[in-house]
Amino acid sequence: MANPIEILPVEGIGEVVPGDDVAELLWDTIAAGPYVLQDGDILVITHKIVSKAEGRIIEVASDEEYRAVIESEAAAIIRRRGDLVIAQTKHGFICANAGVDRSNIDGDRVVLLPERPDRSAATIRTRLEAASGATLAVIISDTFGRPWRRGLTDVAIGVAGMAPIEDLRGTTDMHGRMLEVSEIAIVDEVAGAADLAMGKSTGIPAAIVRGMAWTSSPGRAGDLVRPASEDMFR
Amino acid sequence: MANPIEILPVEGIGEVVPGDDVAELLWDTIAAGPYVLQDGDILVITHKIVSKAEGRIIEVASDEEYRAVIESEAAAIIRRRGDLVIAQTKHGFICANAGVDRSNIDGDRVVLLPERPDRSAATIRTRLEAASGATLAVIISDTFGRPWRRGLTDVAIGVAGMAPIEDLRGTTDMHGRMLEVSEIAIVDEVAGAADLAMGKSTGIPAAIVRGMAWTSSPGRAGDLVRPASEDMFR
Repeated sequence: MANPIEILPVEGIGEVVPGDDVAELLWDTIAAGPYVLQDGDILVITHKIVSKAEGRIIEVASDEEYRAVIESEAAAIIRRRGDLVIAQTKHGFICANAGVDRSNIDGDRVVLLPERPDRSAATIRTRLEAASGATLAVIISDTFGRPWRRGLTDVAIGVAGMAPIEDLRGTTDMHGRMLEVSEIAIVDEVAGAADLAMGKSTGIPAAIVRGMAWTSSPGRAGDLVRPASEDMFR
Repeated sequence: MANPIEILPVEGIGEVVPGDDVAELLWDTIAAGPYVLQDGDILVITHKIVSKAEGRIIEVASDEEYRAVIESEAAAIIRRRGDLVIAQTKHGFICANAGVDRSNIDGDRVVLLPERPDRSAATIRTRLEAASGATLAVIISDTFGRPWRRGLTDVAIGVAGMAPIEDLRGTTDMHGRMLEVSEIAIVDEVAGAADLAMGKSTGIPAAIVRGMAWTSSPGRAGDLVRPASEDMFR
């Protein structure tokens, strides 16, 4: 029988400031809460607390300065309409404002994406595996829009410990027919699932996804970036 | 304290054929399984069994006939590269092959999207609410690709009972600052979460998502279609 999957909110992390040790904060918060990390758990962390801990915060005194930060974070501008900029970040992700975010931060400061989110995820994973003794995966998430469909969803921008894509190519369905739909961006589905337990304004910056089968791998959210040569929508 | 969310696989639905009553099949399957439908449950159903029950199956004798079916299902062709067609369906969704799918179906037949997936979802919801006495939402899902990011994720193509988008505009974060990231496509995150329990080749065509707060509404996946005038990527 297939197992149920659980999404467990990690509550009680206070305000994170530059220099904080996110792995330690997460460990202490989980230890103080009702859940114990188990083998196979995926810890999904909103990038905001990682960025803040890493000091990826910039003061902006005006809209002009805000726009200048976006330009400096962008590797390429994909589209521009009015104040809205769709840009490719230096990591390769394509999103609004090159990932520079004004919400969920006090005063006139903006939060940038972590400089190397895959590395941040790997560091947190190593620390939490050592502390818990459990085999874990870690996903760092952000909230992205997408073409064609209204609304935003959470996706993975950093991954450690698990394959970001479940490649079902070469496997067959229950009729023995080769599967056409075959490369599932499993970490994006996990990031979105975790968001259901995190919400946007409730102060729950992480969730544990438990009970899911996943493929062990160093992991790299960078692998989710579709090469420009394969992309029909740039 | 925030509640955990559970994703419960609905197992044991056999092969679905035209004329089957999907609501009854789902009800019987859930009744035979370990879970009882509860107030607030969201039932996510892969469109494949809905389409099959509704007779949305066409025999194709050749690749040419397959391509002809795609053309007839498409309201507009968005991009074409080699054999790959990105098309807008008559519902407004933009996806590969106008949603015409060759996998998970026996012989030389293809499965089309339900003609009116929101109506299909509403019918299933009404029936299951009557049978269970519980207040439910229903989502019909499909697996779509997207620009810029590799891999596919499940999204909602039919919705009944819940608001497809959680509109957080006008709400503030914990610093009292207006949220910028504000329109969350919650039903797409739920569809992706359910896929984690369903897999692609395991014969689990539905899952119950339990423990999530959602906004009651007639619901309409059609509301997820971004109007062409607002879309920068067509």
